[in-house]
Amino acid sequence: MVLLVHHTLSPQSRKARIILAEKKVLFVLRQEEPWNMSADLKKLNPAGDLPVFIFDGNIISGNYAVTEYLEENYPEPKLLTGDFKHRAEIRRLCDWFDRKFYTEVYQYIIGEKVFKRFKSGLSPDSKILKAGMNNLKFHMEYIDWLAERNNYLAGSEISLADITAAAHLSILDYLGDIDWERYKNAKLWYSTIKSRPSFKEILKDTVKGIYPSQNYQNLDF
Amino acid sequence: MVLLVHHTLSPQSRKARIILAEKKVLFVLRQEEPWNMSADLKKLNPAGDLPVFIFDGNIISGNYAVTEYLEENYPEPKLLTGDFKHRAEIRRLCDWFDRKFYTEVYQYIIGEKVFKRFKSGLSPDSKILKAGMNNLKFHMEYIDWLAERNNYLAGSEISLADITAAAHLSILDYLGDIDWERYKNAKLWYSTIKSRPSFKEILKDTVKGIYPSQNYQNLDF
Repeated sequence: MVLLVHHTLSPQSRKARIILAEKKVLFVLRQEEPWNMSADLKKLNPAGDLPVFIFDGNIISGNYAVTEYLEENYPEPKLLTGDFKHRAEIRRLCDWFDRKFYTEVYQYIIGEKVFKRFKSGLSPDSKILKAGMNNLKFHMEYIDWLAERNNYLAGSEISLADITAAAHLSILDYLGDIDWERYKNAKLWYSTIKSRPSFKEILKDTVKGIYPSQNYQNLDF
Repeated sequence: MVLLVHHTLSPQSRKARIILAEKKVLFVLRQEEPWNMSADLKKLNPAGDLPVFIFDGNIISGNYAVTEYLEENYPEPKLLTGDFKHRAEIRRLCDWFDRKFYTEVYQYIIGEKVFKRFKSGLSPDSKILKAGMNNLKFHMEYIDWLAERNNYLAGSEISLADITAAAHLSILDYLGDIDWERYKNAKLWYSTIKSRPSFKEILKDTVKGIYPSQNYQNLDF
């Protein structure tokens, strides 16, 4: 059995799900709460990272190892495409979202609105939320600028950069935190990614106690 | 000219310098303060990440892109070795240090002791420092455990995992924050890495206003 241990609010888990769907790998999902990880998974995966990809007794842990493993071992279709320059640009943008966007936006907004509530039942700190929303504007402007230059973030074809960015944005979009009307190029780009068959399962995700925003599942938002 | 823009206290920059030296690539260093990056570099590298590798008009930005670029384009000696399992283990460990150790130890200790002082002139917050020192113990125990099983962290040969871990540890060792006597296996492993010719330049590093610990340059510490 090919198993992906994930959480619906983990952007790196969403990224792995989209990559697997693009590469047409069949897999089963098992959800784990990152703040309440089961002892057996913690033992296999001491950093407590998600996603974890398990098959035939092999365990591949965490975003970096899983992403590069899938690209090396399921080369069709390639998502790290082109010459060394293009590959470096794709990886730079993946890093932008997985590290910069994650720290400056995700941890502030999703950390306060969702994880804090699940973990401690406390209300979000409005100062942290506001800082996260301000950072989100900067990142949306950057995506808008990238999408204006090309059809896709790293060039004329879809790549890991688009999948990584869309995985992150989809979580904020679930909560309705993105003001798409202000970012026309980003909106057009996201609607293209969202319409891909590999995104279909992502749009069915639900989070206990939180309804998706009106636009979340809408391909023509 | 082959140029590596770095900072001596950036573990990811140290990692790139060691990889380049292992692969015998000649390069010139240019130091940039991450908290005070020059406008020209910021333009080329909008995330403000270090290291940045520049050659023949090409710019490769940030740890993920630089590491994978060097491995793909300078394959000798390979630092991401072995079959898919071994490669996944190496990348898992790189991620451990570049993300987990960085967040739980580096940002607490180096952030408080050094960056805070350079940026604002303020003294370290003893609570944050203490938390960082506690986290460091956990990480040192993990390294000690890994080093007890094998000669190197991911197996019987040197890999990117060792280079990444040693790059991070070398900065804490500069400040004298590692109690090596408590971690005999980790100490033996680090002394092996430290003795490699690729580490020589790292041991000559100095930080303005901060003297290296007694053991920093000592190969037989």
